[in-house]
Amino acid sequence: MKVLVPKKSLAETLARVERIVPSRSSNPGLSLLRIDVDEDGMELSGSNMDVDIRARFAVDSPGSASCAVVGHVFSQVVRALPSEDVAIDLGDGEMEISSGTFATRLQLMAPTAAPVLTFPTEHQGALDAGKLERALSAVKYAASVADFQAVFRGVKLELADGRTRSVATDGFRLAYYDLPESSGLAADIIVPARSVEELLRVLGDGEVKLGLEPGQLSVQHGNYALNLKLMDGTFPDYERVIPKRFPVSITLPAAGLAEAVTRAALMADKTTNNRVDLFIKDGEVRITAEGSFGRSQETIPVMQEGTDSEIGVAYNSKYLVDALSRASGDVRLSFSFSGTEAAPSVVTDLSDPSYLAMVVPLKTS
Amino acid sequence: MKVLVPKKSLAETLARVERIVPSRSSNPGLSLLRIDVDEDGMELSGSNMDVDIRARFAVDSPGSASCAVVGHVFSQVVRALPSEDVAIDLGDGEMEISSGTFATRLQLMAPTAAPVLTFPTEHQGALDAGKLERALSAVKYAASVADFQAVFRGVKLELADGRTRSVATDGFRLAYYDLPESSGLAADIIVPARSVEELLRVLGDGEVKLGLEPGQLSVQHGNYALNLKLMDGTFPDYERVIPKRFPVSITLPAAGLAEAVTRAALMADKTTNNRVDLFIKDGEVRITAEGSFGRSQETIPVMQEGTDSEIGVAYNSKYLVDALSRASGDVRLSFSFSGTEAAPSVVTDLSDPSYLAMVVPLKTS
Repeated sequence: MKVLVPKKSLAETLARVERIVPSRSSNPGLSLLRIDVDEDGMELSGSNMDVDIRARFAVDSPGSASCAVVGHVFSQVVRALPSEDVAIDLGDGEMEISSGTFATRLQLMAPTAAPVLTFPTEHQGALDAGKLERALSAVKYAASVADFQAVFRGVKLELADGRTRSVATDGFRLAYYDLPESSGLAADIIVPARSVEELLRVLGDGEVKLGLEPGQLSVQHGNYALNLKLMDGTFPDYERVIPKRFPVSITLPAAGLAEAVTRAALMADKTTNNRVDLFIKDGEVRITAEGSFGRSQETIPVMQEGTDSEIGVAYNSKYLVDALSRASGDVRLSFSFSGTEAAPSVVTDLSDPSYLAMVVPLKTS
Repeated sequence: MKVLVPKKSLAETLARVERIVPSRSSNPGLSLLRIDVDEDGMELSGSNMDVDIRARFAVDSPGSASCAVVGHVFSQVVRALPSEDVAIDLGDGEMEISSGTFATRLQLMAPTAAPVLTFPTEHQGALDAGKLERALSAVKYAASVADFQAVFRGVKLELADGRTRSVATDGFRLAYYDLPESSGLAADIIVPARSVEELLRVLGDGEVKLGLEPGQLSVQHGNYALNLKLMDGTFPDYERVIPKRFPVSITLPAAGLAEAVTRAALMADKTTNNRVDLFIKDGEVRITAEGSFGRSQETIPVMQEGTDSEIGVAYNSKYLVDALSRASGDVRLSFSFSGTEAAPSVVTDLSDPSYLAMVVPLKTS
């Protein structure tokens, strides 16, 4: 059975599906991509156990067929095809792909050799895809990458009536983003940050449909359907640790502060957690860092509110820069204290009040 | 002593010098960059034992001074400077770099802590820099990267009266490039391929001066001076193995053949040395490859000269593609045989007869 496929659709779709389907796996079935064709479309599907993906696009086909191929081999061949016109001939145990002067025959596996995936056809919830994209991409940097940190490696989604919030924290910094929108779902769920990454790659314009089943968030958007396995465990009660009272706060362009901190931190050592110190006084912030090669300082003007006496706070420069880099325009950086000790600082984006980031200072005594 | 330095000159020069000066070395002196300033210029110099480099550019200085800094730290700081105007204040044991709102103090070492380098002031030879660049970049791919292959890891330069030739081979393929030019030097030398890489980065327009001392090629070009340590050992007598008689040859666009071979080779296995087979008959070349995932073929028209009976030759596809990718426009691929066994094939670039590449076929029996 010969199917005519536009190379562009096939290659673009495969580029996303290929990211999920592992090229090596101790379970050889996982490296297979399932292909289902019917009269008006081709479906590609695969899974890495954490994320199932299915993508559909239009083809010119005389009938229906199903098969499985080794995903990364099929992808490599498709990328290299010389012509925009591609014919895929699904035969007995072999697929012939021809394009221009080139032809290749790939071994086929039975479709049942690939993971058996089911995607819901009905979804209870929905959100604007662009807004969900913003909420997830604004916070995922704050999730942990350390294997032992369990739920800290996920992004929590609080799906409530009239409010959708994304939150991530690794215990040293935290970020949340509030959408004043109902998703139609009511639950608190934790999605692995890596799966969030894959979801972000398929989100474009329009609506994203959301469905919840035990242990799984199902997403349908455009030509893509994804099942994201959820994380077990309890997310920390983070609201409790976000300070509410700030004796001092400063307002300045986020980019300017991030660049100055990055520059100063070149002198900081890894052994001191990339420590930079911020000193606030008389409408200026002085940023200093030192290490075995020397020391740096930079002073920039700020709008200062609160007490007049000089304050000093030390941070892991990377955490402060991460928190700032998600803001555009001006930010307010607010300092809290517990007695004379610096307590967590809070970054708010003046042009987007949905975003809040918290950074825990370094202990200096 | 305060020196005013344009950031652009400093950063561009450092980017090249920094590649040579190792950021880690068991000899800590090697990671130092020496800085010499006089009334009208700044010189940066360093070495990795194989290549010494010295670069000079104009600065505004009230006097002379010399010092040494840790190269990669200095480079990082310079890249991050916020303003185009940079002041470097060389003090006692410390250098203060200030730019815009930023200032940093770096520890200095005595200039004698850095490698002691000498660069010749007179050169016996010279070549056009663009032509030398072409001759070296056309052949260096054919040098070996395997540690045990001694002189095969170098590029040989044959400097003779009226002729300058670059040659590289790893025993499986070979490339040479002939310049019909006298360099003014007379010697056969072998430069490590890695040092050739660094030399290529500083070659631009104009003349390059060349000098030979025992064990060392000295190069002066624009603001850069380099000493390249030469390799000991005897380069193989390669002319002997380049065939002269070709029963069959084909002419076709280099890029078209390279793309078709790359595409077919996707099906080839590493276990078969990325084998592709070329079959020539009736003015067509058929390229085939197979492996555990399937098989590919592509047929493209060629201009064929020589015998009419079908011939077949197997190659490591990577070697054939490397040889083709240095040619532009049409190439002639000429096949030789030893009895019925395929012997080395030769690629010539019809638009640039200076270039010749040889590829040894895979043994198939």
